[in-house]
Order: sequence, then structure tokens, then C-alpha cells
Amino acid sequence: MYNPPNVAVNPENMTSRIGLCGLAVMGQNLALNIAEKGFSISVFNRSSSKTDATVERAQKEGLGDKLVGFHEMRDFVTSLQKPRCVIILVQAGAPVDSTIASLSEHLEAGDIIIDGGNEWYENTERRSLEVAKKGLLYMGMGVSGGEEGARNGPAMMPGGLPEAYAAIEDIVTKISAQVDDGPCVTHVGPGGAGNFVKMVHNGIEYGDMQLISEAYDILKTVGGLSNEDLAKVFREWNAGELQSYLIEISYLIFEKKDDQTSEGYVLDKILDKTGMKGTGKWTIQQAAELSVAAPTMATALDARFLSGLKTERVAAEELYSSLRPTSDNTPLTDGEKAQLIDDVRQALYASKICSYAQGMNIIRNKGQSMGWNLDLGEIARIWKGGCIIRAGFLDRIKKAYDRDASLASLLVDKEFAEELVSREGAWRRVLTKGAFHTLWSDMQSADSITTTHYNR
Amino acid sequence: MYNPPNVAVNPENMTSRIGLCGLAVMGQNLALNIAEKGFSISVFNRSSSKTDATVERAQKEGLGDKLVGFHEMRDFVTSLQKPRCVIILVQAGAPVDSTIASLSEHLEAGDIIIDGGNEWYENTERRSLEVAKKGLLYMGMGVSGGEEGARNGPAMMPGGLPEAYAAIEDIVTKISAQVDDGPCVTHVGPGGAGNFVKMVHNGIEYGDMQLISEAYDILKTVGGLSNEDLAKVFREWNAGELQSYLIEISYLIFEKKDDQTSEGYVLDKILDKTGMKGTGKWTIQQAAELSVAAPTMATALDARFLSGLKTERVAAEELYSSLRPTSDNTPLTDGEKAQLIDDVRQALYASKICSYAQGMNIIRNKGQSMGWNLDLGEIARIWKGGCIIRAGFLDRIKKAYDRDASLASLLVDKEFAEELVSREGAWRRVLTKGAFHTLWSDMQSADSITTTHYNR
Ligand SMILES: NC(=O)c1ccc[n+]([C@@H]2O[C@H](COP(=O)([O-])OP(=O)(O)OC[C@H]3O[C@@H](n4cnc5c(N)ncnc54)[C@H](OP(=O)(O)O)[C@@H]3O)[C@@H](O)[C@H]2O)c1
Ligand SMILES: NC(=O)c1ccc[n+]([C@@H]2O[C@H](COP(=O)([O-])OP(=O)(O)OC[C@H]3O[C@@H](n4cnc5c(N)ncnc54)[C@H](OP(=O)(O)O)[C@@H]3O)[C@@H](O)[C@H]2O)c1
Repeated sequence: MYNPPNVAVNPENMTSRIGLCGLAVMGQNLALNIAEKGFSISVFNRSSSKTDATVERAQKEGLGDKLVGFHEMRDFVTSLQKPRCVIILVQAGAPVDSTIASLSEHLEAGDIIIDGGNEWYENTERRSLEVAKKGLLYMGMGVSGGEEGARNGPAMMPGGLPEAYAAIEDIVTKISAQVDDGPCVTHVGPGGAGNFVKMVHNGIEYGDMQLISEAYDILKTVGGLSNEDLAKVFREWNAGELQSYLIEISYLIFEKKDDQTSEGYVLDKILDKTGMKGTGKWTIQQAAELSVAAPTMATALDARFLSGLKTERVAAEELYSSLRPTSDNTPLTDGEKAQLIDDVRQALYASKICSYAQGMNIIRNKGQSMGWNLDLGEIARIWKGGCIIRAGFLDRIKKAYDRDASLASLLVDKEFAEELVSREGAWRRVLTKGAFHTLWSDMQSADSITTTHYNR
Repeated sequence: MYNPPNVAVNPENMTSRIGLCGLAVMGQNLALNIAEKGFSISVFNRSSSKTDATVERAQKEGLGDKLVGFHEMRDFVTSLQKPRCVIILVQAGAPVDSTIASLSEHLEAGDIIIDGGNEWYENTERRSLEVAKKGLLYMGMGVSGGEEGARNGPAMMPGGLPEAYAAIEDIVTKISAQVDDGPCVTHVGPGGAGNFVKMVHNGIEYGDMQLISEAYDILKTVGGLSNEDLAKVFREWNAGELQSYLIEISYLIFEKKDDQTSEGYVLDKILDKTGMKGTGKWTIQQAAELSVAAPTMATALDARFLSGLKTERVAAEELYSSLRPTSDNTPLTDGEKAQLIDDVRQALYASKICSYAQGMNIIRNKGQSMGWNLDLGEIARIWKGGCIIRAGFLDRIKKAYDRDASLASLLVDKEFAEELVSREGAWRRVLTKGAFHTLWSDMQSADSITTTHYNR
């Protein structure tokens, strides 16, 4: 007995500045963001229930006069000012093709389609050529920041024709996140450049998450830190060079109590098994294609693959614990713990530099091979806000490329090199501790070797 | 003034058992191998000079009555017994397509084409369907062992139609390498299965070479071993669990003097820069596609990428040595050196188990997703001889799959697990030494931390 709410319909003489097609998490929130910034917007979704829900939410948020929903593609398209600009936010792949097909029936030469999804860049290049036959302009625009970013200001990575970008520039510069040196959007480059850069952004995000997980694991397993200790440490870290969205949500997660059973922490009840979307995998495959070493991202992806093999891991644990002596971990002294925490902080920062160097070089090599003429400093700048990898650190990267736009790698920027060298001791100590922690039975012989070796 | 030697031409009533098209390194040697094993063979090459050279070489090697060369594709094809079997050994990719096109003009329904190159498996699947329209049967057959293997007995990985395999089985079982449990060839599976397995073989080969390089580097850099010491160590290793073709050629390379300048060793004069062919890269990309962690092969590929950036590495070395205190390495005592050598041996073996586990799982997952019904034990068996990764070790892998054909990973085979556990201490010590060796200036603080930590 579904009863659709009243859907506002544009009077003949009123048209919207832009249209948005696809109203799941990303689309709905981006539409409200656009309306809130003062642009009139028409919205459409294959299933009309999402359209109605979006209209209702707009009304509740006081944006009812800016947002209008349609149940028919034709009405949706004809409600737009010419040249018509339509952002698509549906599932990547075939759904984008079928959405373009239905849109194209009603669009006219000069109109513009902008796919905001996590699309494989070659699909965008193919579609650009296809719709160009009808005189339509096409963009692939990576959008990062998830639900919250879409609503309040994401980082946006539009690629495609400059004319198409010019047509939406006023909107995207308003709706994107705003940082000290401007809005988190730029015309990334031609063709699928925007999608490609978004893809690598996600690869970097995988790397960051893996590094945080490893830092967490060492502090917890070797250092014996509790969730509360960890939250405190990460909170402190977030005030320094590691400041970033992912460190921030980490400590919020560490300290989050289980409010369903009111016992213990949520973190300790989460299954250690994760899936993945296409972008991380594509990043690794592209790195190989481009001859760029990307070990941090590759390790992050591998960790996800292994996490997925929960049953096999449980069986392996059983086998190995039957073969190995059990470990007896004596807690660290306060001094040792403090040193470990500081070492891990430094190791995490040094690894982060390496990870971003890999990501930037994937983008750099692709840009060169495609003739995209990318501005790496500008790409780092638009990631400073809105997106998942946003961090104070990105300003450092921007500045490194400002100093030398043709840097072979961030690792040979003098400032980053100095930071790496000064953290090298801590970094290597963490590695050693990680390598030896679980092998207490062997500790004595290990120690005798390492000590004699080191003392020389 | 090119003057072709006399090329023997088959009399009307004499036909050859098989044909081979493409007479560069691999083709020429495989043709002679086939002739030597008693099969009459017709050969052809796009440029007739290679045909003539092959005929000449056959005559010199006393195989002139078994091998006959042709300058025209038509004559070449009509010289074959029906159903005609033609092995192609030209450069992978487009040359294979154009060779198939010219062959097809003269072949008839029921004839068989076998591509012996390092081909991308999907190309083989595409070609199988294309030539099937003309009633031709197709196989993609990986061949490993390089020039020498092709001449004296390679490992062969034919995939495709069982009827096609039946037509060449007598030949391939004779010309392939022979080991204790049979010839190094088997019908791998349908479609592109043979190419896929050869591709992973090459990925494993990359991994083995990288592991050997790292063992070499640690023994040389940390252990201070000379080339002669290294040759001695590897020669000893080759008598034990590490016995393999790659270890064998390593010690031959270590001890090889420079015979051009008669000063020093060849090894020390070789530029530390390498390229790569497609198969290693494809292996990594497929691992990502199949959600299989393959860190050893990925690292091997990364090392090649980095090796290629010689200019950038020299510049980076300059920058970093300006920022870092110079190291002063005290030589190891004899006892320390002996321990290091033994640790590296164990670490190398343990890493090798991990690397092969990755490779076998790439094959396993692909086989499952393609419905290829692969026999992993049999695949390990055919690698026991002829190919580059041949090693005593492969018999262990075969036996692990004999014990349990559906093993989730070699790492959970009880015997391999026991071997890993018993080598764990050595393995971790090597890791620690590698991590700390270059950081002598930091050694004191590192030591104070690790010692207190270990001694608890
Ligand atoms: N979620 C995030 O945090 C996030 C972050 C960044 C980027 N992205 C990317 O943004 C895009 C949208 O993501 P999302 O999470 O909002 O939505 P989603 O779950 O990826 O896709 C759901 C939307 O796609 C539509 N759709 C699916 N198949 C369709 C078809 N054949 N024809 C027309 N429409 C079809 C659905 O319409 P119905 O309602 O009719 O089923 C719905 O509107 C994706 O490319 C995603 O990867 C997402
Ligand atoms: N070399 C090895 O150690 C090794 C080991 C295992 C596998 N393989 C694989 O085996 C195959 C052959 O390797 P290879 O090293 O012997 O030879 P190659 O250098 O890969 O290829 C040279 C051969 O390809 C022919 N060719 C090139 N383009 C052609 C075209 N458009 N039409 C017809 N023929 C064409 C050449 O003919 P022309 O003489 O007329 O130029 C020559 O016979 C390759 O797939 C290779 O990857 C090689």
C-alpha cells in the first residue's frame, strides 16, 4: 500500500540550474548540499520511492523550494535550464550506461552529463566518445567524503572537457569542502583523469587504514595498550604531524562502548573480516601496468584478502598453535611502553610518507603516459578537506610539489627526506619488535645474536 | 648479396609428422629437439634466413634427414601429415594473430594449431573460438626452460582441447624433460589454462630470483662475504633442501671471472638495472583480480621497477648520504658469520615456501573461477624438470597436494608448517639484521631498546 507523498512539479516557466540522477546515499546528500548552497535542483531516481524520500528530506531541512523531484525521466530532463547539466550518482558500471541511455533520449547537443561515481576511468573515456556523437559533453567526477562529505562538502575530482567543467564550476566550487587555500575541487585533467585520481585516492586510503591497523596491532599486542590507552595515544597524535580524519575517527572508535549490550567496547566485537570495492584493486593493477612500486597499497589489499579468509585463518591458527610453544608475554615497563608509543608514532608517519609517495607516482606516471598534464600539487591541495584522507600532511605534499613540480618522488623532496632520516631509528626498532614479539621461546638465541651484532 | 643455402624440399610423397613456425631462439631449439627425438618436422619462419639457419644447424647436428625447411607458408603446410599439427613460436600478441591468419589460409578442418609462446591466456581463449569457426583445433602451450630447455627438454604446459592434446601427446612426452615420475608435460586444462599456469610459473620465477638476490645482498652487505665465499655457500646449499637450477646458476655466476678484462668478477660489473616481460606483471594483476595475497611476487616486481630507475636511485643516494651519518661496519666474527649464513639459508627456504604457496593459490583460485578442474600436484610435478624453477622442492609440493588435493594453502600442509615453525627463529633474526644493518649510528639506542625488550 505504498502511498507516494506529493511531489512538487516545476511550473512550465521555472527551470532548475542542475539535475541529479541517482538518489542513494551519495546522490541524496549531494542534492541537498547543492540546494543548500542556493542552486535550484531537479532530482530523479529509477525507483521513485527514493525521489520521494529526497523531496521529503529537503522539505524537512527547509530546502523544499530549491529541490524538486520527478518520477519520469522526460519531465526531469525538461525541467532543467539549458545547457542542461546532469550529475549521475548510481552504481558504477552497467547502471551508468543504462542511465546515460535513458538520459540521452531527452538531452540535446550541448548538454552535459557528469558521472560522480567511483568509475573505472576507461569507462568514462569510452562514454565520452559515445555521447560526443550526439553532441553531449561528458565528465567523470570522483567524489570523496562519503555520506557526510556529500552533504556538507566533499572533495571533488572532475575530469573531462574544460567546457563542461566551466558549466558546473560555480556549483562545484560552492558545494565542495573549503580549506585555507580554496575549495576542494579543481579541473583535474581531460578524459578519465578525474576518475583515475579518485581511484588512487582510494588506494591511498587503503594504505592509510592498513598503517593505522598495524600501529594499533603493535601497540595492543606488543605494548599491551588498552582501548582507552589507545584512544588517548591517537588523540595526542591527532594534535601533531599525524593529524587526519582517519586518526580522528580511530580514537573515537577505540573509545566507543558497546551500547547494545552495555558491556565492553564495540571494536572488540567486530569480526576481523573485510571486503573491498574495485578501486583498491584497480590501483594495484595500474601500478603494475605503469611500473610503479606500490608496496604499501599492495600490502593493504593483501591484508583485506587475508581478512576475508576467516575460516582458513582459524584453521591455520589451530595448526600453528599445535606446532609452536605458547608465548608468555611479560608486560612492558612504563618506560618501554612510552618509547614504543613514540617509536610507533614516528614509524607511522614515515610509512605514510612512503605510501603517499607511491600514490602520487602512480598518478604522475599515468598522467605522463596519457598526456594528461596533471598538477600534482593541486591534486594534493584538493584532498586537504572533505575527503577520507584529508590531513594536515597534504599541505606538506602540496608544498613539496610547489618547490619542484617534477619531483621524481616525494622521498627525494629534501624536507621529507630529512623527516624520514630522523625517524629511521624508531622505524627500524618498531620493525624489529614486530618481528620478534610472538617468538618468545626463541628470544634468548635471538637476543644473543642481535646483541652481539649490534654491539660491534 | 644474400645467398640462401640449399633448402631441402619434401618430395611429394613424404610428409612430416609436425610443423613449427617461428625459428628464433625457442623455435629453432625446439625444432631440433623434436627432430632428435625421431619425429619428422617441417619448419618455417617469416624471414627465410632463420629457416635456412635452422636447416643448416640440423644438418650440422646430424638431424638433416628429419628436419626440412620451407620458404613458403603454403609449401610448409602442405608438407604436413593430416591432421596437421603446427606449433607457433613467434613473439606473443599481434604476431601470433597474423601467423594464425596466414596458416589458416592453408589449413583444413581438423588441423591443430599450438601456440608455444608466453601468451596472455585470454588471447588463447579468443583465438580458440575464432579458429573453431573453420574447424581448427587450438592449444596454448607454455614452454619453460629457455634456449637450453627447448633444445634438450623443457617443461611444457599445454592447455586446450583434449583431442588436440591427444594428437601431440606422443611428441610432447618425448621432447619434454624427463624426471623420476614421468615427462614434464601434462594436459593442464581447457582453454587458456596452459598459458595461465606458465604465467604463474614466471611469477614464481621472479619471486625465486628476488629471494636469491636478497639472500645474496644480506650475506654480502651484512656478512661481508666475498664472491668466492658466496659461491661456496650456494654450492653447499644446492646439495640440500634449496637444491634448484636457480641456486646452481647463482654460484656459477658468483665465481665467474671477467674474461674480457681478466680482472675481477663479472657479477660486480653488471649494471643493477633490469627490465621485465609481461608475465610477472600479469601474475600480480591476476592475483589482485582473484583476491589472492601475493606479496613475494609483488615485491619481486617492485624491485625490478625500482632497479629500472637507475638515474633516480643515484640521485636519491646522493641526497640521503648527505643527510645521514656514514656507516662504519666492523666485520663479523667467524662465529657470527657462520650463524648468519645458516640463518639466511633457513630464511630463504621459509620464504620460498611462502612464495610457492602464493603462486599455487593464484592457480587454484583461477582454476576454480574458470571451472578448469586443475590438478595442482600434477602441475608441481611437471615443474620438477626442464623449467627455470625446477627444484627438488617441487616434489615436496606435489606430495603435499597428493596428501590433500584441496589444501587451502601450502602453508597449512602439516609438513610445510613444521618446516616453517622450525625456521621461524632464523627467519626473524635475518629480518632484524637486514633492518638494522645500515643504521650503525643509531645502533646504540636501538640496542638498548631491543635488549631490554628481549630480555624480559
Ligand atoms: N557510498 C559511499 O560512501 C561512496 C563514496 C564515494 C563514492 N561513491 C560512489 O558513488 C556512486 C553512488 O554510490 P551510492 O553508495 O550512493 O549508491 P550505490 O549503492 O552504489 O547505487 C545505488 C543507486 O544506483 C541506482 N541503480 C542501480 N542500478 C541501476 C540501474 N540499472 N539503472 C539505474 N539506476 C540504477 C539505484 O537505483 P534504485 O534506487 O532504483 O535501485 C540507486 O540510486 C557509486 O559509484 C559509488 O561507488 C560512494
Ligand atoms: N626466449 C626465451 O627464453 C623464452 C622462454 C620461454 C618462452 N618464450 C616465449 O616463446 C615465444 C618465442 O620466443 P623467442 O625468444 O624464440 O622469439 P621472440 O624474440 O619472442 O620472437 C621472434 C620470432 O617472432 C617472429 N615474428 C615477430 N613478428 C612476427 C610477425 N608479425 N609475423 C610472423 N612472425 C613474427 C620472428 O620472425 P622474424 O624472424 O621474421 O622476425 C621470430 O621468429 C615468445 O612468446 C616468448 O615469450 C621465450
